[in-house]
Amino acid sequence: MIELDKINTSAPDGAKKKAMNRELTALHKRLFSLQNVLYAEGRHPILIILQGMDTAGKDGAIRHVFSCVNPMGCNVKSFKAPTEEEQNHDFLWRIYPYLPAKGMMQIFNRSHYEDILVPSIHGTLSTAAIEERYHFINCFEKQIQASGTVILKFFLHISKKEQAKRIEARKQDPHKKWKYDKSDEREAKSWEAYSRVYESILQRCSPEIPWLVVPADQKWYRNYYIANRIVEQLENLNLKYPS
Amino acid sequence: MIELDKINTSAPDGAKKKAMNRELTALHKRLFSLQNVLYAEGRHPILIILQGMDTAGKDGAIRHVFSCVNPMGCNVKSFKAPTEEEQNHDFLWRIYPYLPAKGMMQIFNRSHYEDILVPSIHGTLSTAAIEERYHFINCFEKQIQASGTVILKFFLHISKKEQAKRIEARKQDPHKKWKYDKSDEREAKSWEAYSRVYESILQRCSPEIPWLVVPADQKWYRNYYIANRIVEQLENLNLKYPS
Repeated sequence: MIELDKINTSAPDGAKKKAMNRELTALHKRLFSLQNVLYAEGRHPILIILQGMDTAGKDGAIRHVFSCVNPMGCNVKSFKAPTEEEQNHDFLWRIYPYLPAKGMMQIFNRSHYEDILVPSIHGTLSTAAIEERYHFINCFEKQIQASGTVILKFFLHISKKEQAKRIEARKQDPHKKWKYDKSDEREAKSWEAYSRVYESILQRCSPEIPWLVVPADQKWYRNYYIANRIVEQLENLNLKYPS
Repeated sequence: MIELDKINTSAPDGAKKKAMNRELTALHKRLFSLQNVLYAEGRHPILIILQGMDTAGKDGAIRHVFSCVNPMGCNVKSFKAPTEEEQNHDFLWRIYPYLPAKGMMQIFNRSHYEDILVPSIHGTLSTAAIEERYHFINCFEKQIQASGTVILKFFLHISKKEQAKRIEARKQDPHKKWKYDKSDEREAKSWEAYSRVYESILQRCSPEIPWLVVPADQKWYRNYYIANRIVEQLENLNLKYPS
């Protein structure tokens, strides 16, 4: 059983901001090079999924981890609440067009997991229909993995206290105000409910394509963690320029 | 009359590689910040068009100028030879879906100008039909400018000698071999013909949305020039975080 309350949201003891930021700069350089080979080789599609509570730092992670890559080889799709047209289709219909091609990195800022989360919290689908989605998501991810896609799923894990602090910052800081949304505070009230659904998602979706739980209270550690994991993964692929 | 042979392809006298690269690093930082406000404000769509002979450095410019931006706010579309489906439509049909939304930067790696260039060289359209395209492109660009899009058009200007050197490098360098295409050498034979069509495009499309001719024989100067021009343009927009 995964219990989010028992998983650390903070950087591990001994991790220092300055050193981690230095590491991040080095990781940026490696990522910049690795991505060039990835693109040149054109063999592996890379799908990076970012999920987390409101204010967990999905946008910030994208900005600070990926602002070193060639935008020609990297796309970001932010999934919002489904439009009316999207709702008239199977829930994976709007996901498909954004799956990465070989050699491309695709970042999902939120994803098909919203289609479990939101109906679970707001009761807009029956339990049976939600259960089905767990099953279909597992099939879907295994299918795209089978056709060669490398999938990395990051859950940005912050504490309830940190969320409250960040919502406050959005209300005060003139550089962050544009991100403030009244619904943040409404949704924050469902913190416990969201936590239970996330626990179920982390547990059930799935051992073969596991979630990485990122301690995300400190932005510098979150950035380092994600960049490091992606660089590791790309290095494991033994990428080569085609001859 | 624009005569490309008379326009410098080299960095201006006195420009030094080391100093320009230092400048580029500073420009990267400004671009990273400016783009964040651009995105937050969500007022201006930015369209950056890159054209140039084969090997002029379109891919390289994208990699080295824009690998500092948040990929969430920046998309790249590389236009290849039109597919059969695309050919069954008006030539601007495939362009429209990639126009930038407010707050977004969109880079066109090649563009609708290929639809003048290629038929002009290969004779696949009548002169009258090509003439029409000049007119329609001017209308199209003015139209999207009128609805708020900021358009920056860069022509990457290299010498014939530099092109020959780069094609050779693609054949030899294991990191560049993947970019080598036999058609490069075939197309290089049409250098003069391409130059005449580009002169006509630079001249006629159009004073209101002028082309910037980038001296592109030295990559470090090309990168600096483009980054500098974009930063200048963004600074002129007086971007502000919304309150």
